[in-house]
Amino acid sequence: MDDKIAARLFVTGGLAAGARLTLARGHGHYLAHVLRLAPGAAVALFNGCDGEWRGRIESLAKGGAAVAVEKQLREQRPDPDIWLVFAPVKRGPLDFLVQKATELGVSALVPAITRRTIVERVRRERMEANAIEAAEQCERLTVPEIRDAAPLSRILDDWPEGRRILLCAETGAAEPIHDVLRRTGHAGPCAILTGPEGGFEQTELDGLRKLPFVTTVGLGPRILRADTAALAALACWQSAHGDWRMRPPRPD
Amino acid sequence: MDDKIAARLFVTGGLAAGARLTLARGHGHYLAHVLRLAPGAAVALFNGCDGEWRGRIESLAKGGAAVAVEKQLREQRPDPDIWLVFAPVKRGPLDFLVQKATELGVSALVPAITRRTIVERVRRERMEANAIEAAEQCERLTVPEIRDAAPLSRILDDWPEGRRILLCAETGAAEPIHDVLRRTGHAGPCAILTGPEGGFEQTELDGLRKLPFVTTVGLGPRILRADTAALAALACWQSAHGDWRMRPPRPD
Repeated sequence: MDDKIAARLFVTGGLAAGARLTLARGHGHYLAHVLRLAPGAAVALFNGCDGEWRGRIESLAKGGAAVAVEKQLREQRPDPDIWLVFAPVKRGPLDFLVQKATELGVSALVPAITRRTIVERVRRERMEANAIEAAEQCERLTVPEIRDAAPLSRILDDWPEGRRILLCAETGAAEPIHDVLRRTGHAGPCAILTGPEGGFEQTELDGLRKLPFVTTVGLGPRILRADTAALAALACWQSAHGDWRMRPPRPD
Repeated sequence: MDDKIAARLFVTGGLAAGARLTLARGHGHYLAHVLRLAPGAAVALFNGCDGEWRGRIESLAKGGAAVAVEKQLREQRPDPDIWLVFAPVKRGPLDFLVQKATELGVSALVPAITRRTIVERVRRERMEANAIEAAEQCERLTVPEIRDAAPLSRILDDWPEGRRILLCAETGAAEPIHDVLRRTGHAGPCAILTGPEGGFEQTELDGLRKLPFVTTVGLGPRILRADTAALAALACWQSAHGDWRMRPPRPD
């Protein structure tokens, strides 16, 4: 049989040798009609907690494809603990942000309604679908957690102890992000916070800066779009404190 | 008169007190019909070498808008010298890459045709328009230089002395980008090199790695899309060696 992995799929069932999984409708369609695979083809499976496994397509019936789980390919390992708390942007930039942040290894995406946030409706299912697709394609072993949108003030009221916030703000005092990352060392759980296209309101910024777990970071002299700032800060954090000492898995 | 800046425009003429400029057709339309400005409104002007100036709209006639140059708002300063040499991607991701790289302060965009590059046609005018628009919106004083697409081998044959290349490669040995940036210090002109969606060919990688001015950098264990890798590497470089110790200009 051909062990070459033809697709990589996020599944919700438990993964162990001998298990048998029914795939989601979308995955069955994708395997049968987009990739034109047949029973017997090998796929890679991950569920966020059991590592990566080789699975074998057993059937591609209309109601649901079935896969037999064969052998573990990679062990699960903990992801860097970095949240992105962001004022939601319009649909196109939001799709993009979710995909790129997933590639860059974000652990949770937390949409925060700020005072100047214009976007009212955040489709969580759409964010989840984008995150899953990006995770499947980038060799992640997890899918980032997607939170429901909530007011920033409420998110801060419930803020977990010990998690620092790197606040990306374009006005007022800020320490260059490079210096902050060097100074703080590998200091545990973290979150990047970015505002809406119009920026935070001054009173919001004043309130944020008073919080003991908030550090304002600078991303240079240009005014970055909200999604650019989020991805730039995420890349800087990952390179300094995340898992960027590791290399991608070897291709088969 | 109202000195509040209503728009920010990249112009090609010289900027000095008392000068009078005829604006490009697109700019005239934008001022008159999108922003609905009238003569007397103040705009900010930059041309890549004379800093930023306040201009005053004199006329918005159909043939071309005219602006009188009044007063310098900011002095020109040198940009960080960081090129992005990249295998061109499809139109949507390319638009995006040009916009984001401009925001992140890239000094030149160099499309390089590699062996696995699928995209044949690179519309330089479209790249320029995207770069200008992004520069206008992000408070840059320059527009990145846009090169014509050329084979990677020819670009390397003509490579300027003293400019290092940070090669983003997902296979084979690599040093984490954070370590490379810390080790090399503020080492002068640099370029980030990213491959096409399918990656570099092995022989291409072997050839690149033999060049004395090439350092292979790692961007972690996930397989990044070409545009994500380019922007992530650019953000890391700017934060460590670029101008990210500076802050954006103050709003009026």
